[in-house]
Amino acid sequence: MALMLGIDIGGTKVAVARVTEDGTVQGEVMEFPSPSTGPEEFVEALLEQLREVRSRIEDDILGVGVGCAGTIDWHESKVVESPNLPLEDEPLGEQIAKALRLPVVLDNDANTATLAEVRVGAAKGMSHVIMLTLGTGVGGGIVLDGKLYRGATGSAGELGHTIVNGNDDLCRCGRRGCLEQYASGSALERYARRIVDHGRLASAVGGDDAADAAAERPEDYAKRLSELAAADDLNGKSVGELALEGDAAARDAVAEVAYWLGAGLANMANIFNPDMIVIGGGLSSLGDLLLEPARKVMEAHAIRPNGTVAQVTAAQLGNEAGVVGAALVAWEVLENVTVPV
Amino acid sequence: MALMLGIDIGGTKVAVARVTEDGTVQGEVMEFPSPSTGPEEFVEALLEQLREVRSRIEDDILGVGVGCAGTIDWHESKVVESPNLPLEDEPLGEQIAKALRLPVVLDNDANTATLAEVRVGAAKGMSHVIMLTLGTGVGGGIVLDGKLYRGATGSAGELGHTIVNGNDDLCRCGRRGCLEQYASGSALERYARRIVDHGRLASAVGGDDAADAAAERPEDYAKRLSELAAADDLNGKSVGELALEGDAAARDAVAEVAYWLGAGLANMANIFNPDMIVIGGGLSSLGDLLLEPARKVMEAHAIRPNGTVAQVTAAQLGNEAGVVGAALVAWEVLENVTVPV
Repeated sequence: MALMLGIDIGGTKVAVARVTEDGTVQGEVMEFPSPSTGPEEFVEALLEQLREVRSRIEDDILGVGVGCAGTIDWHESKVVESPNLPLEDEPLGEQIAKALRLPVVLDNDANTATLAEVRVGAAKGMSHVIMLTLGTGVGGGIVLDGKLYRGATGSAGELGHTIVNGNDDLCRCGRRGCLEQYASGSALERYARRIVDHGRLASAVGGDDAADAAAERPEDYAKRLSELAAADDLNGKSVGELALEGDAAARDAVAEVAYWLGAGLANMANIFNPDMIVIGGGLSSLGDLLLEPARKVMEAHAIRPNGTVAQVTAAQLGNEAGVVGAALVAWEVLENVTVPV
Repeated sequence: MALMLGIDIGGTKVAVARVTEDGTVQGEVMEFPSPSTGPEEFVEALLEQLREVRSRIEDDILGVGVGCAGTIDWHESKVVESPNLPLEDEPLGEQIAKALRLPVVLDNDANTATLAEVRVGAAKGMSHVIMLTLGTGVGGGIVLDGKLYRGATGSAGELGHTIVNGNDDLCRCGRRGCLEQYASGSALERYARRIVDHGRLASAVGGDDAADAAAERPEDYAKRLSELAAADDLNGKSVGELALEGDAAARDAVAEVAYWLGAGLANMANIFNPDMIVIGGGLSSLGDLLLEPARKVMEAHAIRPNGTVAQVTAAQLGNEAGVVGAALVAWEVLENVTVPV
């Protein structure tokens, strides 16, 4: 059976699996902690671990797909920079190819996740699919006619860095009003912090509407958010959990994210007219608490001459998404390549 | 020689030409004024004129491409609505096909213009091209891998209706903060009117910057704009002409358009990573007065792991763009269709 190796390099762990052309994992997913060394030793420690994993695999392997968080130079197979890994201007594709003696395809993890959802996940069988991964930042992937779309030089799909609020604050990317500033885990934390500090959300549309609706906020409105803040435990994850428990203030913060996510969805719908938009990343665990109001905003803003508009759904794949997607990218690229094995 | 008929239906005139597969017009471009009748008689008057034009053509014609301003239901070959023509929910494709006894492809005029620029205009030979047409509104077209991209149900490319300023005013489309509200001929007029009324631009980023830079505005700063307004002659075209003549206030209004156009360009660059973005429509006559500052904004906002960013250039095709583009769309769709002639 023909197998591709899928490698998913994350901030805390690295996962490796053998994956068939139809996206099925063969055997176990092997994991090891991401090297905790400094930048100099990181790559060597990573390669050492990968060599060790490779030595335990007896199957013939056609090639390797690697998914990695960060900005990837697709044609050079380089990591340009990564928010959570000490990789800067690192020719990681070449390094892994040498270490494993296999052809390697390196892509960013939003692209690999998108392909995985299209082939074996929430968007299975669909042709035109956009994915937004809502984590600390906002990543994006574009599948058109069933294939990953990469653009002229490989950097297409930076959907988090599209301007949705051009009058507002600078984004950490140095840009102004990026979607990432309004519809990410970091944004959820920021909105919650604003509620803690000011007793309400006051800066943005969704927030104002929510605030107006809740003009009679109870005394203890921001109590639990304030407790989290006092314990230095206020972050996107904890705010999301509070919202799922029903906390009104946390839900207002989520509603603000939902408004901006809806604006982003409307843009994707009007630009791409896709079959489906898949929402992944940590915030997708909020499910319809986030997606339902976001859909409403999208539907109010979407142009649809024939009455249809994109489905919006949470990502379906769990832990295996990273390795499966990485391998599927390799299958997509390497399927017509003959290599000595 | 195989010929396709290209028909360009505009608010003031209709143009018809015979076009070869490589985009060359054969013979003359035939024109007649758009019917000035009410909605009921409009289509019949149009068809009558088209039949008359057809009767003067002796060549064999393979089929017809029709470009029309407005929202088009691509699969149903219908005009859903049009801002400048009395066409609402009109099965125009079928009607023209019956009248001319030829297979017809109906598309919106931003798509046809984009394909024309890619095949024979500013973006000739390029694979991934985005076009923004800046007129009263903002239209868009997407060419990927050399072909028009239409999405799942044919409505892709509504690039004017992407939210770039989600905190701001409602767009005439009922949406909030659309690019069309900030980077169109109507926007240029609005900015100029704001200068006339308030002596300066005060609401938006580009405007504030421009206003700060020009803190010492001369007494007669808005004089000529005010004269235009008094004569009821203030519009996108007249403001643009003043700006080209060097009028400082008109240039500030253009700078505001340029800022938002730059935001739109950055979004297109980060989403599509195209080879080129072509700017068409009436505002493109401003040339580098508009495009140079817009490029600067785009470059400040564009993510480019490999150092490259899309070229931005004015559309190259003049009067013939409409008929050529319409015919090229028909060539793209009908090239594998055999029809009795």
